[in-house]
Amino acid sequence: MAGNLNLEFVFNPESVAVAGVSLSKGYDGMAETYVKALLECKFNGPIYPINPKGGELKGLKVYPNVKDVPGSLDYVISCIPAAAVPQLIRDCAYKGVKVVQFFTSGFGENGTNEGMRLEAEVCALAKRGGVRLIGPNCMGVYSPRSGLSFAPDYPTESGSVSYICQSGGNAIYFIRYAAQRGVRFSKVISFGNAADINENELMEYFTDDPETGIIAAYIEGFKNGRRFSKAVRRAAAVKPVIVIKGGYTEAGARAAASHTGALAGSAKIWDGLVRQAGVIPVATLDELGDILVTFLYLPVPKGRRLAVLDVGGGAAVMATDAYVSAGLELPQLPEKLRQKARGLLDPDAAGLSVNNPFDLGGQYFNTLGTYPLMNMLLDEGVIDIIAFHLHLGINPPFPSMPREFAIAILDNAIRVYTETGRTMVVVIDQLTNTESWETAVACQERCKQAKIPVYFSVHGAAMALDRFISYHEKRRG
Amino acid sequence: MAGNLNLEFVFNPESVAVAGVSLSKGYDGMAETYVKALLECKFNGPIYPINPKGGELKGLKVYPNVKDVPGSLDYVISCIPAAAVPQLIRDCAYKGVKVVQFFTSGFGENGTNEGMRLEAEVCALAKRGGVRLIGPNCMGVYSPRSGLSFAPDYPTESGSVSYICQSGGNAIYFIRYAAQRGVRFSKVISFGNAADINENELMEYFTDDPETGIIAAYIEGFKNGRRFSKAVRRAAAVKPVIVIKGGYTEAGARAAASHTGALAGSAKIWDGLVRQAGVIPVATLDELGDILVTFLYLPVPKGRRLAVLDVGGGAAVMATDAYVSAGLELPQLPEKLRQKARGLLDPDAAGLSVNNPFDLGGQYFNTLGTYPLMNMLLDEGVIDIIAFHLHLGINPPFPSMPREFAIAILDNAIRVYTETGRTMVVVIDQLTNTESWETAVACQERCKQAKIPVYFSVHGAAMALDRFISYHEKRRG
Repeated sequence: MAGNLNLEFVFNPESVAVAGVSLSKGYDGMAETYVKALLECKFNGPIYPINPKGGELKGLKVYPNVKDVPGSLDYVISCIPAAAVPQLIRDCAYKGVKVVQFFTSGFGENGTNEGMRLEAEVCALAKRGGVRLIGPNCMGVYSPRSGLSFAPDYPTESGSVSYICQSGGNAIYFIRYAAQRGVRFSKVISFGNAADINENELMEYFTDDPETGIIAAYIEGFKNGRRFSKAVRRAAAVKPVIVIKGGYTEAGARAAASHTGALAGSAKIWDGLVRQAGVIPVATLDELGDILVTFLYLPVPKGRRLAVLDVGGGAAVMATDAYVSAGLELPQLPEKLRQKARGLLDPDAAGLSVNNPFDLGGQYFNTLGTYPLMNMLLDEGVIDIIAFHLHLGINPPFPSMPREFAIAILDNAIRVYTETGRTMVVVIDQLTNTESWETAVACQERCKQAKIPVYFSVHGAAMALDRFISYHEKRRG
Repeated sequence: MAGNLNLEFVFNPESVAVAGVSLSKGYDGMAETYVKALLECKFNGPIYPINPKGGELKGLKVYPNVKDVPGSLDYVISCIPAAAVPQLIRDCAYKGVKVVQFFTSGFGENGTNEGMRLEAEVCALAKRGGVRLIGPNCMGVYSPRSGLSFAPDYPTESGSVSYICQSGGNAIYFIRYAAQRGVRFSKVISFGNAADINENELMEYFTDDPETGIIAAYIEGFKNGRRFSKAVRRAAAVKPVIVIKGGYTEAGARAAASHTGALAGSAKIWDGLVRQAGVIPVATLDELGDILVTFLYLPVPKGRRLAVLDVGGGAAVMATDAYVSAGLELPQLPEKLRQKARGLLDPDAAGLSVNNPFDLGGQYFNTLGTYPLMNMLLDEGVIDIIAFHLHLGINPPFPSMPREFAIAILDNAIRVYTETGRTMVVVIDQLTNTESWETAVACQERCKQAKIPVYFSVHGAAMALDRFISYHEKRRG
């Protein structure tokens, strides 16, 4: 199948108009938010707010109609009422607009005859006028390279993840969440009802897009199951494809039908598709974040053998259960290595357990000991990955671990990674107050700079490691 | 089996000594932390720091030896080195001390002959001297009524949950975490190696303790499987018993053996025990928190029928998948009720879906509409529980939902609960920055005051609701 790189104009338009801005002072509805997002995310071309009354908005001249915009116009964001949309499409066709994105809802997703009729009319008008449609009932595009955006706080920096997201809300939140965890996007598209541009064309485009290293997707339904199956197979053959299937259960599929009018298909068909195509399935946005930081940051480990460096025997026991249940291995160390490890630490330290999992107890702060310990474990070739756990609520004297302690402990671990390039993951958990939240964010920041993946639960780390290793095992054959 | 209420002295001693305090200025090790915790948690009797050099600590007179303490002495906390413990026990026996708790480690959990010999010696000395032991290798007791504590920041307020926790670290953290979520404890005990007082005696005690309404437990091993099986069955027959089994996997069991010297038993035996006894099993401390807030706050619903009030179609679809997968039901509403619901809301509002799940879209802020909607749903008897979702990261204009918006939305939901006593749960999620963390905490606080359970993930809510309803279904027969 040929690549479909002619969606480029969807992600990198040269000019944008936002139809339906209000001129009421102090009012910021969605149209005004789009304008603000384009300004804050530094859209690299002219921005034209549209309102029949003309005037000015956020320092930009407001045009009465898209037809009044000077010069060419590539991309129109529609925030006008559904009933006015057919005329907008006619005007856009006249103006030579390439793509219209509809925040506007009230079409097929309503389940009413009128909604479906209107959607069909708009599609026919667009087709006749040579205009491509995104949506209706969606947030549209976030593309940091061009500065296209739907929220003012999104990073202006590009990355390698592209995200096909049928739900606007899941896109709005997930970009923020993933950004905070160190994920940067190449392109994100929320495409709602998928009346024109849909998951198939997008999957094909991102497969061939050299700026997309990883494809993430939230999909509720399939316009054409066979084409999607073909597209996702081809995509998964060349890059990691991680998919959340919304409407996996029968009740969820019913909800999806009233959300985006999607025909969800059965869980059985979906499971088969995932297995055959080599897609990585995830169930929640948290899991999607965990997988993305793993694919972005973790060097491919040689195997599944994990050394867990923990503090607190109970935490270490529960972590072992979680990792092993997810399919990882915690090999026991030969007595010779345990002797060697004891020699590096203070054997009389309270709570020390020199084993795998390691309960470092009071030795947690002993950077002189734990640094050579980690190196020794990796040098001896008995393990493939170090999992370093930072629990912020486990110190009896402090409601949460003082930031300077956390950073000192962490920097010691980071040193092993940066000096030797070994495979390491960090889990930061036990957040109980604002201070611990801020400490966790500061610690994550240090790991991000060092390119070490951070997880906020052992279960999240375990699941992501298993999926990541499985992916590479399959590719090695 | 007769009740074992003679452990009362373990939780409510009249005087406490802490052996092993340091006199170095500015140094706060674990002994000093115990003293601080007793002071901050308002221990309701005299506190005697012990150090051979005497002196003063935090305004308290330091005694050279437990034998020098004036008057009677009930409870001794040992932070001295393991080798000095036999003499401490002899001194305690002489003084008539009822119980010694060992923070001290370096006994059976070491796996060395010397460690095991020392543990046996200490047990024999204690038995001969009529002294009961907690530990060794543990944090001991948190009992707000008496003010016994091992961390200075624990609440001084009592509650109805008692927590049997073999791991010190899991106890330290979980008390903080649960407290933040609105759980208050009657008694918590971390009992480490369980050389004397163990899970059996504790389970028996809490079964008969009128101050304990719910028993939570983290257990790594069984000193006597048959006795535990009997004890836990009797407990679960009279109150909810929620248990995490640390060392559930083979590798986890090995880790447990080097943590507390526990013989973990097989997963198969454990699963059988859980099923037969009617124990509620959980896998993580987060889940334990979710279950506890449910048992503490939620009125028993009549059934499993949930109405989900959400904002964002994708979020609603994923929530439906999560709830239904956990065993809950989202009944479709009869057309008559959907009409009625539409009449209460603004049918032209963007993104509105009047269905179950409800996607309130822009109507989220429409307190005039959602209040009668919730009441109507409950009045019509078509559902048993309202699940109200508050997503803090879904608003395009704001990096996180402004606190005043979140509180206005929430107060509207709370009003339904407080005015009518209906069954309601609240999910607060999408935390991406410090502001959203603080908003979530403030919102949780309002729900706590109204006695509505709050969860920080839909999956957590779904799991807890299912376990809670299953528990009551079984009891109804």
